[in-house]
Amino acid sequence: MSYNTLLNKYSELAVRVGMNVQHGQQVIINAPIEAVDMVRLVTEHAYKAGASNVVTFYNDDVTSRMKYTTAEEQFMGVVPEWLFNAQADAFGAGACRLVILGNNPTLLDGIDPKLISMAGAARGKAGKRLRDLVTNSASQWSIVGYATKEWAAQVFPELDADAALEKLWDGIFKTARVSLDTDTIAEWEAHNSRLHARAKTMNDHCFDGIQFVGDGTDLYVGLADGHVWEGGSGLTEGGIPYNANIPTEEVFTTPMRNNVEGIAQSTKPLLYRGVLIDEISVIFDKGQAIEATSSTGMQTLHDMINEDEGASYLGEVALVPHNSPISNSGILYRETLYDENASCHIAFGQSYKKCMTEIEGETPEQLFARGANNSKVHTDWMIGSDKVNVYGVKGDKKIKIIEGGEWVL
Amino acid sequence: MSYNTLLNKYSELAVRVGMNVQHGQQVIINAPIEAVDMVRLVTEHAYKAGASNVVTFYNDDVTSRMKYTTAEEQFMGVVPEWLFNAQADAFGAGACRLVILGNNPTLLDGIDPKLISMAGAARGKAGKRLRDLVTNSASQWSIVGYATKEWAAQVFPELDADAALEKLWDGIFKTARVSLDTDTIAEWEAHNSRLHARAKTMNDHCFDGIQFVGDGTDLYVGLADGHVWEGGSGLTEGGIPYNANIPTEEVFTTPMRNNVEGIAQSTKPLLYRGVLIDEISVIFDKGQAIEATSSTGMQTLHDMINEDEGASYLGEVALVPHNSPISNSGILYRETLYDENASCHIAFGQSYKKCMTEIEGETPEQLFARGANNSKVHTDWMIGSDKVNVYGVKGDKKIKIIEGGEWVL
Repeated sequence: MSYNTLLNKYSELAVRVGMNVQHGQQVIINAPIEAVDMVRLVTEHAYKAGASNVVTFYNDDVTSRMKYTTAEEQFMGVVPEWLFNAQADAFGAGACRLVILGNNPTLLDGIDPKLISMAGAARGKAGKRLRDLVTNSASQWSIVGYATKEWAAQVFPELDADAALEKLWDGIFKTARVSLDTDTIAEWEAHNSRLHARAKTMNDHCFDGIQFVGDGTDLYVGLADGHVWEGGSGLTEGGIPYNANIPTEEVFTTPMRNNVEGIAQSTKPLLYRGVLIDEISVIFDKGQAIEATSSTGMQTLHDMINEDEGASYLGEVALVPHNSPISNSGILYRETLYDENASCHIAFGQSYKKCMTEIEGETPEQLFARGANNSKVHTDWMIGSDKVNVYGVKGDKKIKIIEGGEWVL
Repeated sequence: MSYNTLLNKYSELAVRVGMNVQHGQQVIINAPIEAVDMVRLVTEHAYKAGASNVVTFYNDDVTSRMKYTTAEEQFMGVVPEWLFNAQADAFGAGACRLVILGNNPTLLDGIDPKLISMAGAARGKAGKRLRDLVTNSASQWSIVGYATKEWAAQVFPELDADAALEKLWDGIFKTARVSLDTDTIAEWEAHNSRLHARAKTMNDHCFDGIQFVGDGTDLYVGLADGHVWEGGSGLTEGGIPYNANIPTEEVFTTPMRNNVEGIAQSTKPLLYRGVLIDEISVIFDKGQAIEATSSTGMQTLHDMINEDEGASYLGEVALVPHNSPISNSGILYRETLYDENASCHIAFGQSYKKCMTEIEGETPEQLFARGANNSKVHTDWMIGSDKVNVYGVKGDKKIKIIEGGEWVL
C-alpha cells in the first residue's frame, strides 16, 4: 500500500521535476522490463502534464547478456545504430527523455572483457550524437533508479530477496526525498535552491583549481577558462528547467583538460559496463591518466581510458558533502547515480556544455582550447570520503571548501 | 514442463521458418510485454541462427489505452514517426522482423471512435514507408501469436483464467503445427509444399475472376492483369524464403481494383484497432465499396474505408478450405492472424507486390493500371464458411474451386 503511494509520488517527481514535461512534448522512457509498474505511472503523469505521446524502450538483462554468451564474436560490434539515431532525432527535435536504471550491476560477470569492450566501443560510437545532444541539454532529460531483485540482492547480500528489495526501495525513496507525509515537489524546490546557492558561491570565488587531499588521493584539478559550476536543476538550451539526476547532491564543473596533476584513489567501487572496478588508482600528468590500476576489472578500466584520446582526460569534477541522505544511509548502491551523489568525484571523458560560459560563435576547437573535453565516454568515479579535504586554489591562496567530508565554505 | 518445450519449439519455428534469420542479419521483434519468456527464446534461437543483433520493442496494453483516456484530444494524431522511420530504415537495410501478437482484442472498448480513427490515421501515415517495405518483401517478416490472459479470456469467456490460457496456447501450438512428438520444421516444409502446389494450380488456371456464393455473399472478384497466386513461404526481393504468417492456410492474390461486383457478408467478426466490427455487409460497384454496414463498430468500419481512396477498394482475395487445423478447432480467435486462416477472405486496401508478375522498369502508375491497389490500410475480413462455394471464372467458363467449404479443384 505505502509502496504504491510512494512509487506514485516518485513517478510524479520524475515527470514534474526530473523531466519537467512541457505541454505538447513527446516523452521517451528507457526502462528495465521489471519496471513496468513505474513506467505506467510515469506515462499517466506525463499525459496529465500534457505530453503528446509517450514511448517506452524496455531493456531486458537476460537478452542483453545473451548477446555475449550466444552471438558470434564477430558480431559484438553490431549495435542498432538506427535506434540510437532515432532517439537522437526525437530528442533533438524536442522530446524529453527519462532513463530508469535498475539493471544488475554485475550483469556481465564472467564475460570476456574483450567482448565487452568491443560492444561498448560500438555503442559509444553509435550513441555519440544522442550523447552530445544530452550533454548539450538540447532537451530535458532525467535519470532515476528502480529497485529490481537482481540489484537489491547485490546491495544487501545478507538479506532475503523481499527484504533486500524493500530496503533498496526505502533507500531510493529517501534519497529522492519522497516520503508519505511531505510535499515532494516543494522539497525539491528547496533542495534545488540550496544547490543553486552553493554553485553560486563556487562561481563567485572563481577558483583556478580544486585540490583533493586524503584517503590516498592528492590531486590538483585545474578548472577550465570560463568554467561554470552547476548544481540542482539546470536549463535546456531553450531555457526549460529540469533535474538530470534524481537524486542529486553535487555541484560540478569542467576541469582544465591538460592541467590535472597528482594521484587519485577511488573510495567506492565503480560498476562500468556490468563489470566491477574496485580500488582504482590513477596518476595524472598534464591532465592525462598516465598510469591506472585497480584490484578488479583492470582490463575494462584500461579499455575505457583508451576508448579515445579524450577518455584519458577529465571532463567533470564534482563536490558532494559527506553529510547527505545518500551518504548518511551508509549504503553502497553499486550504481553510479547513487554512489556519485554520496561522494566527491571526477569523470573521465566528455564535458558538459552547460558547465562552460557561452561564447557566441565559438567553434568546438575554441571551446576545447579553453579546457573542455571531448570523448565518446563519460565515466564518473568516486574519490571523496569523510577523510578527504577539498581546497579551492586561486593564485597563491588556498581556501578550504570541504573538511573531513563536510562543506565549510 | 510441456508448455516450456512447446514454446521453445514454437520460438525456433518463428526464427527458422517464420523469419528464416540469415547469418549476420539484424532482428527486430515487436511484442506485448507479457511475452517476455517467448522473446527470450526467440532471441536465443536468433543468435544461434547467426543473428548479429536482436532488438525488441515491447508494447503494453495499459499505456496504449492510457493515450486515449488521459492525453488531450488534440494529441491523438501525435505518433512517434521517428520510430516508424527507424524501423523502416533497419528493415529496408536488411533487418528481418517478427511481430508477436497477443493484445487484448477489445482494448479500446468504450473509447470514442473519433479518437481511435484520429490515432489510427496518424499511425497509418507514419507507418506507410515501413508497411510498403513489408508488402514489397524488402526483407523477411513474420507474424505469430502469443496467448495473453486478456486475449484468452475473450476467446474462452466461460473458462477461468488459467484454463482459458491453457486452451488458447493449445490452439496456438496446434494451428502452428507444433507438438511434442513431431519435427516442426519438417512439418512446415511439407505444409509449404502443399500450399505451393495449390497456388501453382490456381496460377495454371489463370482465372479472370473468382466468385463467392453463400452465407449472404454473392460476390465477383475480378483478378488483376498478371496476378500471381501465392501461398506458404514466399521470397523476399533478394530471394530469401520466409513465412509471413504462422499459421497460414491461404492462397491469395491481387484483385482487379475496379472489377469487383456484388455483396459480401462477413462470416466472423473483425477486430480492428481494438474495436469489434461484427456482421459486416458491403456492396461493391466497379470495385468500390459503396455501402457498408455492421451490427457493431460501424463508425470504425466507415472511418477505415474512408481512410484514403484505396481503402474502399480490395487489395487481396484469399482462398482457405474449411478443413484446416484452425477451422477444425472451432475456435473464434478474435485475432485476424488466426481467423483469416480459417476462412476465405478479402482485404480492403494495399495489395502485395509479390502477388503481381514483375515487369522490369514498370512504374507504380502502370502497376496500378493492371489492377494493383495502393492504400495506407490493409484489412482482411472473413467471408468463407462451410456454406460458401467458390468458383473460378474464365471467359464464359466457370469451374468449382471450393464446395461447401472444401477444396475440390
